[in-house]
Amino acid sequence: MSIINLDYISANPLLPEVQEAMVEAIKKNYGNPSSSHRLGDEATEVLELARKNIATLINSASPEEVVFTSSGTESINHAIKGVALAHAGKGKHIITSNIEHNAVLKTLRRLMKMGYKVTSVSVDEYGLVNPADIARAITDETILVTIMHGNNEVGTIQPIKEITRITREKDILFHCDAVASVGVVPIDVQELDVDLLSFSANQFNGPSGIGGLYMRRGVKIWPLLDGGDQENGRRAGTENLIGIVGAGVAAEIASREMESRVNHTKILKDKLIKGLKEKIGDIIINGHHEISLPNLVSVSVKYIEGESIVLMLDEENITVSTRSACASGALRASHVLLSVGRDYADAQGTLVITFGKETTEAEIDRLLDVLETAVETLRKMSPLYNKVQG
Amino acid sequence: MSIINLDYISANPLLPEVQEAMVEAIKKNYGNPSSSHRLGDEATEVLELARKNIATLINSASPEEVVFTSSGTESINHAIKGVALAHAGKGKHIITSNIEHNAVLKTLRRLMKMGYKVTSVSVDEYGLVNPADIARAITDETILVTIMHGNNEVGTIQPIKEITRITREKDILFHCDAVASVGVVPIDVQELDVDLLSFSANQFNGPSGIGGLYMRRGVKIWPLLDGGDQENGRRAGTENLIGIVGAGVAAEIASREMESRVNHTKILKDKLIKGLKEKIGDIIINGHHEISLPNLVSVSVKYIEGESIVLMLDEENITVSTRSACASGALRASHVLLSVGRDYADAQGTLVITFGKETTEAEIDRLLDVLETAVETLRKMSPLYNKVQG
Repeated sequence: MSIINLDYISANPLLPEVQEAMVEAIKKNYGNPSSSHRLGDEATEVLELARKNIATLINSASPEEVVFTSSGTESINHAIKGVALAHAGKGKHIITSNIEHNAVLKTLRRLMKMGYKVTSVSVDEYGLVNPADIARAITDETILVTIMHGNNEVGTIQPIKEITRITREKDILFHCDAVASVGVVPIDVQELDVDLLSFSANQFNGPSGIGGLYMRRGVKIWPLLDGGDQENGRRAGTENLIGIVGAGVAAEIASREMESRVNHTKILKDKLIKGLKEKIGDIIINGHHEISLPNLVSVSVKYIEGESIVLMLDEENITVSTRSACASGALRASHVLLSVGRDYADAQGTLVITFGKETTEAEIDRLLDVLETAVETLRKMSPLYNKVQG
Repeated sequence: MSIINLDYISANPLLPEVQEAMVEAIKKNYGNPSSSHRLGDEATEVLELARKNIATLINSASPEEVVFTSSGTESINHAIKGVALAHAGKGKHIITSNIEHNAVLKTLRRLMKMGYKVTSVSVDEYGLVNPADIARAITDETILVTIMHGNNEVGTIQPIKEITRITREKDILFHCDAVASVGVVPIDVQELDVDLLSFSANQFNGPSGIGGLYMRRGVKIWPLLDGGDQENGRRAGTENLIGIVGAGVAAEIASREMESRVNHTKILKDKLIKGLKEKIGDIIINGHHEISLPNLVSVSVKYIEGESIVLMLDEENITVSTRSACASGALRASHVLLSVGRDYADAQGTLVITFGKETTEAEIDRLLDVLETAVETLRKMSPLYNKVQG
């Protein structure tokens, strides 16, 4: 029996066209884009075509503003540490929010060990940052504001444009972690007016291990990887060309299919939320109900452990997640869920269900059926549930 | 006509077995190793098998000492910056040599902007570091010595073990850039007694965009990429699993074939050097003639520009390089060649010829024939050559 993947956010399946392009790249055995002979020229051509496709997907003014990295995490580290180090002379204060991805939070904690100060603004019950809180947090020492686009655990999309209106006026750099959003919803770096934007190819059905960093022309930032002159001197290291080829094809398809992809996932999301409400009592749908990623549903199921459901669904060949895969090794409750007001128990009883263009309504139906039984079974074993039910 | 690749150091061709394994990995559409469901388990298994193969290749005491990165460059940045930042409390002095790769040199320059001090020791005419120079350079502030294994431009192999005898005694960490050596000659991290060692999968016919960093157990070092708990918390970011699979297979084959690979390349190197001396006058073979990489010949051809030869050979479907591909965009003379005593003109007239297990003696013969003609042609056009010839 084939597996129903409803954990797209951990690993999007590669599209057939992406697979094909990567297999072809493997067989072509490309050279090193930095070489001055013909093997280098061929490789450069392939590299730059991929860059163009990415630039189109995020509507950057020029492909040169796109730097390939090895992951969304690298992009985020590069953006934040690169700005922090390059602008240390001006100040050492950075503003962020309470619901950022670990790649942002832990990068900021690292900088705090180096003498930087971080202000983290709260979010409301829907997971929304209030731009006025950002404005209030700005000091003369502030060099960077970093706020995510779509949240990877609850789906809420932040008012980036309202925030960049503030940072642009104050002449403070703005970085957006858009890893969960690029390829899922339209992202226009010019319209958002961001200085830096991080993304990952796997979120639009490209390979894992390829990320990108949009750097607005003229932004002063240090490289994270020093060495050779690759990526116009902004990111050293011989390129993962096979992965980049896959990312380029995935970006081209994502651009072309954006509207239908959004519509398709919205239908699935509505269906899933409706089904959850009908079939399972005592649940909370997390995140903003309108301004949110269409491919993600976060649901807190009271009186049970999310990890138990994940294992039961796995037995039934359905994969879902309890939270960011990057944090799945950790047993602490999600900082995002605590930030939007869930208590510890509800946070532990939360499932993150993510899907994509290849997900069908039948798969959502199957999930709902299996989930209904699983929750019933688990609740029967829950002393707390039995006590509440009296 | 197929291309004769004698620029292996820029891009090793993928072995058929590596291609096959990567294609299979693409088709399997692995999940995220961090996921707690079965797609995650499968991915973890594949990831850890590759790590084991790498550990065997460098004889690390445990696979856990191997961290996958996105390139040799990332490994080097991670090692040097990671030690520098973690040990800043003890001191800010680092020792290196004059002939390191740009990934080392530019990383150190970056640290100098952050207040670190760097002592760079000279090499002799063969490109050898004198361990006594390292010992003399050590101060109370020294936290790290970073010296490469095999040089990527002239091939000379450094006396790493004699240097680590000094650093171990003084309780100073030692990092070895072994990118040009791992997979080419036997490397045993325990015998060399290094604390950190960087390498790249492409140098042993694995994919580009995959590197590794050996970290001896217990070494105190900061991550370069902060975020999720991947790689035992030492390197965040979702893994490039397809590339890692290729690297693992390449490492397994390299371990198995090491002896025959060294013998094969040694025969080619001897043949090439003999042919160069017979066919072309006024040349200098750079690097140490015994203690050097068997897959690399660096030759300075007087009175001509290396770049002109590269282009002429390219016309004849032969690829060679003038220097590190990572620096090929730059028109400055190689710092390595200047360090071993070449003058500016001879440095500019230098070819780096690199090969591997798939290179044949017939290909070396063909290179020698074409090179003889190319050098003759170019020298006829050289005013300097004509003047010298009288």
